[in-house]
Amino acid sequence: MADPWEECMDYAVTLARRAGEVVREALKNEVNVMIKSSPADLVTVTDQKVEKMLLSFIKEKYPSHSFIGEESVAAGEKSVLTDNPTWIIDPIDGTTNFVHRFPFVAVSIGFVVNKEMEFGVVYSCVEDKMYTGRRGRGAFCNGQKLQVSRQEDVTKALLVTELGSSRTPETVRTVLANMEKLLCLPIHGIRGVGTAAVNMCLVASGAADAYYEMGIHCWDMAGAGVIVTEAGGVLMDVTGGPFDLMSRRIIAAGSKTLAERIAREIQVVLTETRVSGGDWTGQIDGVDHVELLGPS
Amino acid sequence: MADPWEECMDYAVTLARRAGEVVREALKNEVNVMIKSSPADLVTVTDQKVEKMLLSFIKEKYPSHSFIGEESVAAGEKSVLTDNPTWIIDPIDGTTNFVHRFPFVAVSIGFVVNKEMEFGVVYSCVEDKMYTGRRGRGAFCNGQKLQVSRQEDVTKALLVTELGSSRTPETVRTVLANMEKLLCLPIHGIRGVGTAAVNMCLVASGAADAYYEMGIHCWDMAGAGVIVTEAGGVLMDVTGGPFDLMSRRIIAAGSKTLAERIAREIQVVLTETRVSGGDWTGQIDGVDHVELLGPS
Repeated sequence: MADPWEECMDYAVTLARRAGEVVREALKNEVNVMIKSSPADLVTVTDQKVEKMLLSFIKEKYPSHSFIGEESVAAGEKSVLTDNPTWIIDPIDGTTNFVHRFPFVAVSIGFVVNKEMEFGVVYSCVEDKMYTGRRGRGAFCNGQKLQVSRQEDVTKALLVTELGSSRTPETVRTVLANMEKLLCLPIHGIRGVGTAAVNMCLVASGAADAYYEMGIHCWDMAGAGVIVTEAGGVLMDVTGGPFDLMSRRIIAAGSKTLAERIAREIQVVLTETRVSGGDWTGQIDGVDHVELLGPS
Repeated sequence: MADPWEECMDYAVTLARRAGEVVREALKNEVNVMIKSSPADLVTVTDQKVEKMLLSFIKEKYPSHSFIGEESVAAGEKSVLTDNPTWIIDPIDGTTNFVHRFPFVAVSIGFVVNKEMEFGVVYSCVEDKMYTGRRGRGAFCNGQKLQVSRQEDVTKALLVTELGSSRTPETVRTVLANMEKLLCLPIHGIRGVGTAAVNMCLVASGAADAYYEMGIHCWDMAGAGVIVTEAGGVLMDVTGGPFDLMSRRIIAAGSKTLAERIAREIQVVLTETRVSGGDWTGQIDGVDHVELLGPS
């Protein structure tokens, strides 16, 4: 059967590689850093430049499609997912890594139609690894088929997660309390390379058994989400319920059993405020932001 | 001036590459895992096989030299550093990564004479990165000169550390409390790729500003230690005193100011028991082990 989104996916791969070249080139020069929601939430002119480049190429070729991009949203655009074909983009996933030249920096492109993830492209540009996933057609890294570990035993699991960019003491404490609980189950260990998209691709490739995180955004998950599921993995909400791309939280695991076990162990970090409308609101401390989606 | 240890160093590079080939080959097959000091402290037949191989090659060429190797010590050999030229070896730094095929696994070879680190070789074998450092002659990765970040401002720092293999609740809590304290200074973030040697090489290359860890061993630090100092970095004890290769703890940083600041912030995890003799002893819980060195 012909794939209605094949052309879009090929275009996404081309764009991700082109964006990756810009990112790699920028890594050779001085990086000017600006601060977003917290002293640990950084942005650079390269994030903005790469997103503008991707947006203009997509708009030119697919003017009727919608677009959600990290830097466009930061600049005031709404982050609403409709049924329209939507490109969800993180120009640099791992901006703090980019700033430090820590070698994990990804261009992430997810493509969603009728709120269903159709394909995802994650280009880890320092490693030169192109991860792709197409719904119903498998996941690949540089042409090699990906397969999750299928690990079900949490005590034999290697997890990936991040400490996050919030520096609100309460949030930091919950993040660390979750690590403590998991470590003492015990588990084999926890790693984190500093980008949600690459962490999820490590789950897809079987190198890690599961990833969980709260406080991230749809553009951190939209590219890698379908790569994980097409590699045989499971996406789940941190409460154990169904995964919601707009919920700012995720468990991505090599098996349902492992995802459910992690969901049982961890405490939810953010109190989500779901109201009607598709705008953002800040928590009272102005550090964490909660992304809002239509009525729950 | 002729380098008295040049031949040894060339040999170390050759051996590390050869060992790395064995490790890479082993990654293609099923990995059989055994447990050492805790359910998170793993060993495989490949660790033992690679160490035996390295030991036999070194003994054949340099029969008068001494040898300290992770698996030989685990098998009952003493871990004592004398003034004799000593090869300090970790056949697989990152055994948990190796077990999971998490892509950071290093062969680490340090060479110490009169208790001074003369050269270090760290071969990150999945990435195919050969890091080398020779006292007084610089540090390199695949021929490219390494330079630390020189970052002095902790609030702009990206740190690397690990959660460790201890699952003793008190140790885990101290490890996490240290992360909490540092995160809330604030700092840019914390990463960890699962091997001390590669973490330290990331500091040497400027990708991370500092690394600290407690509970590790001389074979985790002996290869990368001189790579860090030759890249312009600083080694320090976690108390702020001079670094001691046999102390099981380290701060490796891009600047003295940053190392001192980290030393001021973190709480020491292990209570060291220094007694005469060069044997090992276990803490009362049988999980953490303390390496012993002659009278302090």
